[in-house]
Amino acid sequence: MIYNKITEQLLQEITAIVGADAVLTSEAEIQDYSHDETEDLIYFPEVVVKPKTVEAVSALMRLCNDNLIPVTPRGAGTGLAGGALAVNGGLLISMERFNKIIDIDEANLQAIVEPGVITEIFINAAAEKGLLYPVDPASKGSCFIGGNVANCSGGPRVVKYGTIREYMLNLEVVLPNGDVIWTGANTLKYASGYNLTQLLIGSEGTLGIVTKIVTKLIPKPTQDALMLASFATNEDACAAVSAIFRAGIVPSALEFMERRGIEWVIEHDGLTFDLKDGVEAFLLIEADGSDLDSIFADCEKINGVLEQYNCQDVLFADSSAQKEELWRIRRTMAVSVKSNSVYKEEDTVVPRAALPKLINGIKAIGSKYGFSSVCYGHAGDGNLHVNIIKAGMCDEDWNSKLKDGITEIFELTVALGGTLSGEHGIGLVQKDFMPLKYSPVHFAIWKGIKSVFDPNGILNPGKIF
Amino acid sequence: MIYNKITEQLLQEITAIVGADAVLTSEAEIQDYSHDETEDLIYFPEVVVKPKTVEAVSALMRLCNDNLIPVTPRGAGTGLAGGALAVNGGLLISMERFNKIIDIDEANLQAIVEPGVITEIFINAAAEKGLLYPVDPASKGSCFIGGNVANCSGGPRVVKYGTIREYMLNLEVVLPNGDVIWTGANTLKYASGYNLTQLLIGSEGTLGIVTKIVTKLIPKPTQDALMLASFATNEDACAAVSAIFRAGIVPSALEFMERRGIEWVIEHDGLTFDLKDGVEAFLLIEADGSDLDSIFADCEKINGVLEQYNCQDVLFADSSAQKEELWRIRRTMAVSVKSNSVYKEEDTVVPRAALPKLINGIKAIGSKYGFSSVCYGHAGDGNLHVNIIKAGMCDEDWNSKLKDGITEIFELTVALGGTLSGEHGIGLVQKDFMPLKYSPVHFAIWKGIKSVFDPNGILNPGKIF
Repeated sequence: MIYNKITEQLLQEITAIVGADAVLTSEAEIQDYSHDETEDLIYFPEVVVKPKTVEAVSALMRLCNDNLIPVTPRGAGTGLAGGALAVNGGLLISMERFNKIIDIDEANLQAIVEPGVITEIFINAAAEKGLLYPVDPASKGSCFIGGNVANCSGGPRVVKYGTIREYMLNLEVVLPNGDVIWTGANTLKYASGYNLTQLLIGSEGTLGIVTKIVTKLIPKPTQDALMLASFATNEDACAAVSAIFRAGIVPSALEFMERRGIEWVIEHDGLTFDLKDGVEAFLLIEADGSDLDSIFADCEKINGVLEQYNCQDVLFADSSAQKEELWRIRRTMAVSVKSNSVYKEEDTVVPRAALPKLINGIKAIGSKYGFSSVCYGHAGDGNLHVNIIKAGMCDEDWNSKLKDGITEIFELTVALGGTLSGEHGIGLVQKDFMPLKYSPVHFAIWKGIKSVFDPNGILNPGKIF
Repeated sequence: MIYNKITEQLLQEITAIVGADAVLTSEAEIQDYSHDETEDLIYFPEVVVKPKTVEAVSALMRLCNDNLIPVTPRGAGTGLAGGALAVNGGLLISMERFNKIIDIDEANLQAIVEPGVITEIFINAAAEKGLLYPVDPASKGSCFIGGNVANCSGGPRVVKYGTIREYMLNLEVVLPNGDVIWTGANTLKYASGYNLTQLLIGSEGTLGIVTKIVTKLIPKPTQDALMLASFATNEDACAAVSAIFRAGIVPSALEFMERRGIEWVIEHDGLTFDLKDGVEAFLLIEADGSDLDSIFADCEKINGVLEQYNCQDVLFADSSAQKEELWRIRRTMAVSVKSNSVYKEEDTVVPRAALPKLINGIKAIGSKYGFSSVCYGHAGDGNLHVNIIKAGMCDEDWNSKLKDGITEIFELTVALGGTLSGEHGIGLVQKDFMPLKYSPVHFAIWKGIKSVFDPNGILNPGKIF
């Protein structure tokens, strides 16, 4: 695809659309938009704009489409796959000014929000009305709900409450030619036409730019209990995961963490936490509902399962403060790992009973290639984030051999019935691995769909495939 | 689109693929495949085949694609929108021999099933292992799981457990050119490439033929309670629906039924049921879980809400037999209505707090055009099935004016934030109404997607748009 550069004339037209205060052109101003949370990647767009209205986004898209200017839509820039990077320069559209919660409709248990609302702000606004929006990635304090839609983001509560797909009812979307549509209806279900809402979710900003979001909400559970179980081996902890469901329990969170992850959180955050010898892995397990007795009964049952898997110790959080602290360990793990070592984060997902084979396989592949790893993630969904640690690996090996090691990890993931990325997306950095799972037929269909929406290929080019 | 007829030569090739015992050509044999459960529609395919393997389906599709023969895939033929009718003749592929439950994987809480498995047989097989597959349309005793996927079918338990979209993990699909793909992975979530699983769900057999299905299962709740609440007006019953959720309860079923529907079930099924004077509408409300005390507490709360909406009486089912009988009333209502009058069934869905306006509007439109109606459905989802009753309407009005009345019902539905069809699909009979909700931009995208999968337009032509 041959793109044009943004000329002085085009810049004037862009400025006329959004106003001078919403256009950034200097290197210093654009710097912040040249990277996301993916390791070591820097791409400068030519121009950054911060529109506020759907009309402005539409006019920008039409202008860029007519002039073959590549467009990169961007949420909060917290992505882990390079999806928001302007790899072809061009125009970067930051959605940060689309930051209004338009309506929380208590009669229908629905909300209308703009895509630039920070996920946690929306979660809290819903909670104030006794409602739950259960999509809460670890980055919830900074990521945008629009980015969550684009990447099909998850979080700990997917395991009980379903993925973001279950909550997105209707999306207002600006298409690459500037047309604006609502993808569906503000209803809990419908069966009329190919479901464009679902097609847009996880499309990583390559099919259209979401400008309004209608979400489902549910009554917020009033009670919960949180327990941290420790194990001597990763394998035991992972094997306990599927056994909990087999015992008839669906926890509201079921997270796996390796010891080293917790050690680094302790170092980085200055937490006091009594990390016993011989403990290598942890499960953080939450149960929620409206009735505390019934939650405790579930916890008892879970305990019974854990014992069968050589659980060493169960810490039962006895206050909200302790619950908050345990959750903080899990949520800040990514940041702590990042601050401790050069690393690469991979996102794997398998059927949950395959977790023990996955974690053992990852460690074996690490031994073969000379890297170590810190793994954690949403074990209840079979979703394991693999942080590959450079540590003692020499630069040459890190740069030349690592890709082979990652390839082996994904080959194992696929062999276990899984796939690349449970919730981080493919973006720029995972696309080379896509052929490990998907065939030329998949690529042909995906590219065909892309061409239907974006015949000129201007929207977020170079991502996914 | 110009299609070819099935020549003697092609018939020989078809027979070579599936075997002579799997090919039907005489009018008498094909009769059963010329209609579905939609009113008054008869279309004969030229040939019916009943393949047993994915290889056979692939070879049939390739042959038909090469020779421009239209292909109609068919499940159990229980559809209500004419989606399985061979409107252009050609080859009808019945999936009835794909009737195996291949695996119920208790370690992963997943199952692999063929699309021709009767939904209830699968539900029962899962239940025997303590697992719940919660997608149970009223036709569950005869419909196929593959037809449910094609039509995005629902049922009473969507309201708590989510739509069929939440349960379909991975589909094996034969594309119109004979290529076979798996749409995704056997995982509870993933974010890698446009989600073809979700695109296939609800595509009504126009993009590919599903030959294997991987579903999610969940632990089956061990306890439930069922109550039937009666109201003097439809409006009160409908208004109570959203209030139940606002009170923090998510019932496992919340069904609305009009008095006349119950009267007709009593007549048709010879049920004994004490239908009190002055009662016009009913809500059938189920709560489930693992703890009976907690379920009863929910029922108390629901009762409190019902009282605020002038509920006249609440019948609390006190045995499994009584529960079964109440459910039978709801499930057999469609059949009873059908046997009592010439009718047309429409499927509407709105945000649930809009139900009172929807039902009042439907009655007002009926008065204007001279038809009456019996409404019932999954009120908790805002999904109302509208059975328009011919009764005293003269043939001329029925044939000439009815379409205007239906148009007004759908205009109202759309004005209330809803859309056509919550779970029946568009098929043949609803497609004229699609422009009431969707714009030329939607149609252009849908047709573009259709062309990507099926450039020759051979697969289930004439459906949806």
